[in-house]
Amino acid sequence: MIGPGKAELLERIERCGSIAAAGREMGMSYKRAWQLIRTLNAMFRAPLVDSTRGGASGGGAVLTENGHRVLALYRAFEAEAAGAGADHLAALQALLRDIPEER
Amino acid sequence: MIGPGKAELLERIERCGSIAAAGREMGMSYKRAWQLIRTLNAMFRAPLVDSTRGGASGGGAVLTENGHRVLALYRAFEAEAAGAGADHLAALQALLRDIPEER
Repeated sequence: MIGPGKAELLERIERCGSIAAAGREMGMSYKRAWQLIRTLNAMFRAPLVDSTRGGASGGGAVLTENGHRVLALYRAFEAEAAGAGADHLAALQALLRDIPEER
Repeated sequence: MIGPGKAELLERIERCGSIAAAGREMGMSYKRAWQLIRTLNAMFRAPLVDSTRGGASGGGAVLTENGHRVLALYRAFEAEAAGAGADHLAALQALLRDIPEER
């Protein structure tokens, strides 16, 4: 549903204020960046990005409240997954020899 | 250092009382099972398996106290890793539409 690439795109949109500019920073085509945002917006109950295409102001994009919520939940999920079992792993590693004889 | 296969071998050794029988249950050769146990015993500060090869009693193997400790830590690590981020993931999933328009 949402992974590292989409999360990064959302963060860059928030910073750049533009879907195209955010995608460009990630080496993504204009078309691809818009496609990902359309997918994300359709996938969730409420859109994650609010955008205006072109126009006098040149268009712009911001994260919606739901966009901020999803991004925060995703980052929290990532952090928890990365830290999971760290204590048990450290306890196991403390039982290893300093220089393993075999790997 | 220790993964699903070695953990399973240790559990089966505890149940079978024999390295060869435990390995056989996993479709492993006698040589391979012994090799894994030698590796594990050498890798940790204290051996995980205590064994006697052949002899009048036909040989046998049991987990040492350290073997039980390592196995328990590994299983705890696995369980924690499997459950990590589950709450955040559930919260994210609750924000998804029931029928995603795109995947």
